[in-house]
Amino acid sequence: MNKAAIYHRPESEFAYLYTKELMHVRLRTEKNDIESARLFYGDPYNWNENGTWESQSIEMKLSVSTIDCDFFETEVTVPTKRMDYLFVVTGKDGEKVVYCDLGVFPYKEELVTTKYGAFRLPYFHEVDRFKAPAWVKDTVWYQIFPERFANGDASLNREGVKTWDPTESPERQDFYGGDLQGVLDHLDHLTDLGVNGIYFTPVFKAFSNHKYDTEDYFEIDPEFGDKELFKKLVDAAHERGIKVMLDAVFNHIGDMSDQWQDVLKNQQQSKYANWFHVNEWPAKYTPNADFEWAGDATYDTFAFTPHMPKLNTSDKDVQDYLLKIAAYWISEFDIDAWRLDVADEVDHAFWKKFRSVCDNAKDDFYILGEIWHSAQPWLVGDEFSAVMNYAYTDTIIDGLVKKKINLDQMASNISNQLMLYRKQTNQVMFNVLDSHDTARILTVAHEKKNLMKLVEAFTYMQPGVPCIYYGDEYAMTGKNDPDCRKCMPWDEEHQDENMFQFFKSLVAFRREYADVLSERSLDWKIVDDENGIVKFERGPLKAIFNIGERPAYFVADDVVLSNLVDGKNVLHNGFVIYK
Amino acid sequence: MNKAAIYHRPESEFAYLYTKELMHVRLRTEKNDIESARLFYGDPYNWNENGTWESQSIEMKLSVSTIDCDFFETEVTVPTKRMDYLFVVTGKDGEKVVYCDLGVFPYKEELVTTKYGAFRLPYFHEVDRFKAPAWVKDTVWYQIFPERFANGDASLNREGVKTWDPTESPERQDFYGGDLQGVLDHLDHLTDLGVNGIYFTPVFKAFSNHKYDTEDYFEIDPEFGDKELFKKLVDAAHERGIKVMLDAVFNHIGDMSDQWQDVLKNQQQSKYANWFHVNEWPAKYTPNADFEWAGDATYDTFAFTPHMPKLNTSDKDVQDYLLKIAAYWISEFDIDAWRLDVADEVDHAFWKKFRSVCDNAKDDFYILGEIWHSAQPWLVGDEFSAVMNYAYTDTIIDGLVKKKINLDQMASNISNQLMLYRKQTNQVMFNVLDSHDTARILTVAHEKKNLMKLVEAFTYMQPGVPCIYYGDEYAMTGKNDPDCRKCMPWDEEHQDENMFQFFKSLVAFRREYADVLSERSLDWKIVDDENGIVKFERGPLKAIFNIGERPAYFVADDVVLSNLVDGKNVLHNGFVIYK
Repeated sequence: MNKAAIYHRPESEFAYLYTKELMHVRLRTEKNDIESARLFYGDPYNWNENGTWESQSIEMKLSVSTIDCDFFETEVTVPTKRMDYLFVVTGKDGEKVVYCDLGVFPYKEELVTTKYGAFRLPYFHEVDRFKAPAWVKDTVWYQIFPERFANGDASLNREGVKTWDPTESPERQDFYGGDLQGVLDHLDHLTDLGVNGIYFTPVFKAFSNHKYDTEDYFEIDPEFGDKELFKKLVDAAHERGIKVMLDAVFNHIGDMSDQWQDVLKNQQQSKYANWFHVNEWPAKYTPNADFEWAGDATYDTFAFTPHMPKLNTSDKDVQDYLLKIAAYWISEFDIDAWRLDVADEVDHAFWKKFRSVCDNAKDDFYILGEIWHSAQPWLVGDEFSAVMNYAYTDTIIDGLVKKKINLDQMASNISNQLMLYRKQTNQVMFNVLDSHDTARILTVAHEKKNLMKLVEAFTYMQPGVPCIYYGDEYAMTGKNDPDCRKCMPWDEEHQDENMFQFFKSLVAFRREYADVLSERSLDWKIVDDENGIVKFERGPLKAIFNIGERPAYFVADDVVLSNLVDGKNVLHNGFVIYK
Repeated sequence: MNKAAIYHRPESEFAYLYTKELMHVRLRTEKNDIESARLFYGDPYNWNENGTWESQSIEMKLSVSTIDCDFFETEVTVPTKRMDYLFVVTGKDGEKVVYCDLGVFPYKEELVTTKYGAFRLPYFHEVDRFKAPAWVKDTVWYQIFPERFANGDASLNREGVKTWDPTESPERQDFYGGDLQGVLDHLDHLTDLGVNGIYFTPVFKAFSNHKYDTEDYFEIDPEFGDKELFKKLVDAAHERGIKVMLDAVFNHIGDMSDQWQDVLKNQQQSKYANWFHVNEWPAKYTPNADFEWAGDATYDTFAFTPHMPKLNTSDKDVQDYLLKIAAYWISEFDIDAWRLDVADEVDHAFWKKFRSVCDNAKDDFYILGEIWHSAQPWLVGDEFSAVMNYAYTDTIIDGLVKKKINLDQMASNISNQLMLYRKQTNQVMFNVLDSHDTARILTVAHEKKNLMKLVEAFTYMQPGVPCIYYGDEYAMTGKNDPDCRKCMPWDEEHQDENMFQFFKSLVAFRREYADVLSERSLDWKIVDDENGIVKFERGPLKAIFNIGERPAYFVADDVVLSNLVDGKNVLHNGFVIYK
């Protein structure tokens, strides 16, 4: 047996409360190495009369495999809400061991009956359980970049605004006049599409078109509208059953903000001197041709852009300021969620306070962190509800679209990602195939619309909730930022009606099967790299995706959703979802 | 290469800030499987002109091995305080892979130059760093069970108090009249011994002799003294450079407390109804012969004892009450540390608040949790400073004293335990060979005093800080509770002067070499199970322990501490520490 591969970690994604009383337990082993993994568990203090531990046992189920590892899982409870546990693992080679908190030991019954060095889940605390709002599981999000979605109020246009042109590639500093009235005007579009959550990139007063360089967190950008209009928009969305998520940029602030301007003016004497990470006074940098890069800033910034000085979130005043903002937009405008920009670069201590403020302000509030890598430290239960699941969707794109990794590797990575988080976390992860920060998926797919449909359907079939980047439903294209931020096409001529109908079906499908797609496990049935075919099941739903050249045969009575299906064959870049 | 055995976890004991700027990185692999593990790291946003990532690399050092695994370690920094990283691992079989956040991939240079799926440490946040007070590293603790340490004020004796007799085995409900005046009277003893920290088991008003069933957290137990006396004691200790740690029993409260009595009286109508976990009203149990066991309590308790109803620490009023207590004894009496009883069964959310209250009340405050198993979730930096390191010392006892595991297994378990925590955590772990909750080490050692000396010396040579359970320095014996709580012998007749002198040397040694024993790695040199010999080094210090029958030869110019050494031979149950 490969004993070095055995891994478990109490109070993590390997052992956690799923519901109030159900404990989920996972065990990692080498792939195909283990014949049986049995969990022995019971109350830590419960010894019977002959001095042995009162335990029960259950056979763990092999639930997920990666290229190198198997993951066994089981679900148990103990009425006293306290649990000691050990694993008895038998290898395919016949070796039998006890795996406990102290390590791996040759099997002896006594190790179990005395619970030698047992793992412990000391008490099932509901307050520590990872909880996410139930509504998220049934949500399909729609991401709006307000400056480019719709211009509903020309009176707010700045001087020199460019003509709305969905075919034009914007320059980095261009403005087209999109605003909140534009969103309000087009809510029917969202309802028609079937989405029920809007993720707005920043709407607060800021210098740039993307507004990630906030000047004033308490004001709607005047070119977008005002608070009254925003309130009206939230209310209108809510009336349609659409949730509203705003983007909080708390890692850094815009250099045009009063606070940073005061620092530049008064330097160390500024009352905001401690609001930032100034490594050497004076705070300065050498301007150069690249607006977004300075190699010699004497203060910490977002990436290397001197216009986004990093906030010192361990400063009490900064905390008070940002937490007030967090509460303000919830209590005054009734928003349902915060998306947190560059969330991983802000300290955990701050996010825990932030979480507490949000929870106090509104029940069932959703907090979404922008994190591109594995994110266990933020998803324990007292910081975020989910992260933007780029690590997951990049794997899908690398496998199905870019073909950078083969299908085995893709399936393996997907399985691995699912094992990084608790089940209830996976259910609310934010699965984006593209966004304002990436090239559009259709462009990544070399404008192959069927391939785009395939990868969208694949993603909608995953645990987690999908998000449509504005305009994808009309088959918009766009390379990396700023090209991915073109104007939304509102003239029929530039709208791909076929793609719109496809998304409508897809959204309807995702919402109809929300329970299945949240709850049921993802079971790989075929991962055939040679023929480019993937088949997996989610409970009653079966799905086949074909990126290979040859048709993939299937037998189904009840096709739920498909593209490029000819009779019983899924053609190249086609897919079928059936029961 | 055994790819399934490779493991790393960002923002955990596998990757953490050691000092403000130094990041420690660990990698687990199968034992003897890896030729080279190289860490590639750099700023996430730093790309050079030809579009490749600006990284550096460093060869990781094999630092710790268990029976099954190797742990590689290294120490790096990045001036911008942000770090992406990947591992390039070469097996002894020649296979070369990249291990990153997305998994293990066959080596391609491109994976590194594009930092494919890199691990990330997003920003080096000092506020999130695990910090422990510097004074702890130089502390040798002394645990006092006040009812049995010394009776300094007979006027406080309850009726029916038993005569002070260090040879008598106490019954569970006995009282002997020990008190705080007794401690004050014997501070010279502690100074003579050389210890510089007192850990008091509970001193607050309570029904039992052990006081773990608190009635009033704001009062010193009247049979122990009063607040004025306690203040005098803390001040006197501080004058001698001795820190003071109190025991906070926050998991449960005594059933004689006003709060629980009110619940019993008014049941659901009690204003304290939510202070507890009553699963079914009325709160009740069926009394039986065993005072400490009830199988049918309708409320949650500590273990199965009906006299210790569990507190609902997610209730705001309970939190306010307990946090007020936490702050009160720090701000009013200047205590230096809290030891937290049954700490693992209280929720994390509460402990984070508790930590914050303590940090605000006093700088460099030490928080010690009673946890008997692996404790990573409590040792992230925002809950405890350390735990009572039973998991570690039990392994030492099982290996050297009880011989339940062989020396290889002991060394392996010790190494494994060290890899569960950050280096700065290991430095302040609370290493106890015995306590009021266990049999005394001399009794466990079948009263072999030399073996006791051996295991004490072995423990003092470990990372972490030692604690002497009162009376061990006089070679007290005692089986499990209540036998381990005998009266301290203050008459010379019952004092083992030889053992006292041994402890004096040991404490002096530990304090003289505090830096070495905190900072330097533990390097196993000989683990010879057949001959019962263990040799390891801590920087300049070498140590040999011999539990075998045959003498163990050594060569030393400078012997620092020893027992049972004959010339150049360490005899059976002897040890030598030398340079």
